Amino acid sequence: MRKVSVIGVGQTTFGEHWSLSLRDLVTEAGIKAIENANVEGKDVQALFGGCMASGRFIGQEHIGALMADQMGMNPVPAYRTEAACASGGVALRLAYMAVAGGMYDVVAVGGMEKMTDVSTEDAAVALAGAGDQESELFNGATFPAIYALMARRHMHDFGTTEEQMALCAVKNHGHAVHNPYAQFRKAITVENVMDSGYIASPLKLLDCSPLTDGAAAMVLCASDKAKEYTDKPVEIAASAQASDTLALHERRSLTGLHATEVAAKDAYKQAKIAPKDIDLLECHDCFSIAQIMALEDLGFCKKGTGGKFVEEGNTDFGGVIPTNLSGGLKAVGHPVGASGVREAIDVVRQLRGDAPAPVQVKDAQIGLSHNVGGSGATVVVHAFKKGF
Amino acid sequence: MRKVSVIGVGQTTFGEHWSLSLRDLVTEAGIKAIENANVEGKDVQALFGGCMASGRFIGQEHIGALMADQMGMNPVPAYRTEAACASGGVALRLAYMAVAGGMYDVVAVGGMEKMTDVSTEDAAVALAGAGDQESELFNGATFPAIYALMARRHMHDFGTTEEQMALCAVKNHGHAVHNPYAQFRKAITVENVMDSGYIASPLKLLDCSPLTDGAAAMVLCASDKAKEYTDKPVEIAASAQASDTLALHERRSLTGLHATEVAAKDAYKQAKIAPKDIDLLECHDCFSIAQIMALEDLGFCKKGTGGKFVEEGNTDFGGVIPTNLSGGLKAVGHPVGASGVREAIDVVRQLRGDAPAPVQVKDAQIGLSHNVGGSGATVVVHAFKKGF
Repeated sequence: MRKVSVIGVGQTTFGEHWSLSLRDLVTEAGIKAIENANVEGKDVQALFGGCMASGRFIGQEHIGALMADQMGMNPVPAYRTEAACASGGVALRLAYMAVAGGMYDVVAVGGMEKMTDVSTEDAAVALAGAGDQESELFNGATFPAIYALMARRHMHDFGTTEEQMALCAVKNHGHAVHNPYAQFRKAITVENVMDSGYIASPLKLLDCSPLTDGAAAMVLCASDKAKEYTDKPVEIAASAQASDTLALHERRSLTGLHATEVAAKDAYKQAKIAPKDIDLLECHDCFSIAQIMALEDLGFCKKGTGGKFVEEGNTDFGGVIPTNLSGGLKAVGHPVGASGVREAIDVVRQLRGDAPAPVQVKDAQIGLSHNVGGSGATVVVHAFKKGF
Repeated sequence: MRKVSVIGVGQTTFGEHWSLSLRDLVTEAGIKAIENANVEGKDVQALFGGCMASGRFIGQEHIGALMADQMGMNPVPAYRTEAACASGGVALRLAYMAVAGGMYDVVAVGGMEKMTDVSTEDAAVALAGAGDQESELFNGATFPAIYALMARRHMHDFGTTEEQMALCAVKNHGHAVHNPYAQFRKAITVENVMDSGYIASPLKLLDCSPLTDGAAAMVLCASDKAKEYTDKPVEIAASAQASDTLALHERRSLTGLHATEVAAKDAYKQAKIAPKDIDLLECHDCFSIAQIMALEDLGFCKKGTGGKFVEEGNTDFGGVIPTNLSGGLKAVGHPVGASGVREAIDVVRQLRGDAPAPVQVKDAQIGLSHNVGGSGATVVVHAFKKGF
């Protein structure tokens, strides 16, 4: 199979876009990515989109066709994938496969979600469709509740503290101050987090990613053709995905995501790297505990030590593995279908040297993006390598 | 890219399965396909599923993970795609690409939908998400209304009659009598169709495909390995897909689907065939007019002559191009995400010689499946060739 590179990225601001529709967001992100890639629309041979629950959020399915239509790209084939909050990461992986396998040379990938057109209650129910509807939602478990169970067990088994979880959010908000696309460009303190109300104990409001509207897009190209379009191609060094049970109670462990371990192992093998080789990480911090578990499951620290690892500053800018320098899902916002693509974009920006100056990792060579669907039933890991 | 073959097929009966859930249907179809392929679960390296609107029908998204979970196949990667009623066809195409490109050697493809757990009204609204929500559904146009506009214009431009449309349904019901998986195994007459009430004039109840629960699955394999598993591999000779506008009123024509023309042209080129080489067709007859347009757009007869073509018996068993020998969407039933896979399965059965005897095309060598999303915003065409 061929090597594949990212040649362009683009996104909308993430936030509450009450005056824009999903199609407006898709169009803006898509055009930005295509312009950034220096390709023309006619060069793009297929579209891959990730979107979780447009049927429930805006009454619209058939999102592949919507993308092609909105971008004025008919009759190019367009594919929508859905894997809950990993929809964007899976779309990236499918696009990668199609180019690596030789079906297309240049494709666009989009992630998108319009979440704020419905009530918070309806959004919570739509999002609960990411878990096991029959055993979890039916019994009243929404996503904060499911992650709260993991957090509680992590605290019980390893002594992880609420303050350590709070630090994940504090760090991310600190980074997001510099991100012009972030929903919350506002620094917060541990005290702010601890004082915010419980959503599902031990998780408080500021441990949780928000409801967000937004879209993110990238253009991929066969690596041997990438230099025709850009001086700064970024190579996809690995693309890996794994599945686990939909329901949390059927897992082997509540304190980690097995699918993250499997996907990471595969990704490291593909890219011939180990965690120590990675210069920065964008991980899926839908809740603060998710960041702590990700650091462990991805192999940056030992199982159970993620809270301490964050507390010691290892994930800060300048630390061992700078994590979520964008602000993460917590502060950039989490339009569920978009986040997997957005994470990848922020890794690409770092490797190109295009990140905001205060959080630009110097001479970053390798970055990792980590995207989780539901409570971990789908996990996608991509490794990116500076290609210039 | 490598050649890809179908090595196993399986499906549930199509109908109103009030005692089964989506996951029951997926499991039954998947296990049947895997057994039929003589593979073991551990040989299957990835799952591709098509499902349109599970979020709205049963409150469950994350259908890729659900498949892997239900089939006991974690941690293999699982991908769900959605392209309205073409979800199954797109899933087949994505699976084809992944094997042809070399990512996997053996994969399973599933199509599924559970539609009868909600009211008919809620189902109609969910299905309308396949069209343009902002311009069509918002103004009250459900799918029968949209296809009725096409039928009316076809009648106006070409003199197509309601009786000719009725004949499509009559023929399909006649075939379905022999299909053990069909929802309606009951012959009907033109008089029955003409006497059935108008749903959206000129389309009557018996011009319309029903709401259906069901799942269908197949196993694909790199052709050079297919003989390890089966004596009767069927080669995928072409896989093509095209997009068009979501909204009907933005199309160049109301009397045909441009995306069908584009996809068919591509498929014929890939397979190096012309319509005259094709022994049988499974086309997307969500409404009777859709079958008439498909015959024209796929090149089996000239634009405007589809009604007469059917009337003359050309699409009957023994005719020029036997069409929907399964019974089609009209009589087999139309679980929207499943139909694209089901159509492909029925073509494969014919090429293997496994179709019900009264409708088995003698020595069939090449068959075509045609799957439409919405009113034609996505069309997928696959050509299959007897590989033994």
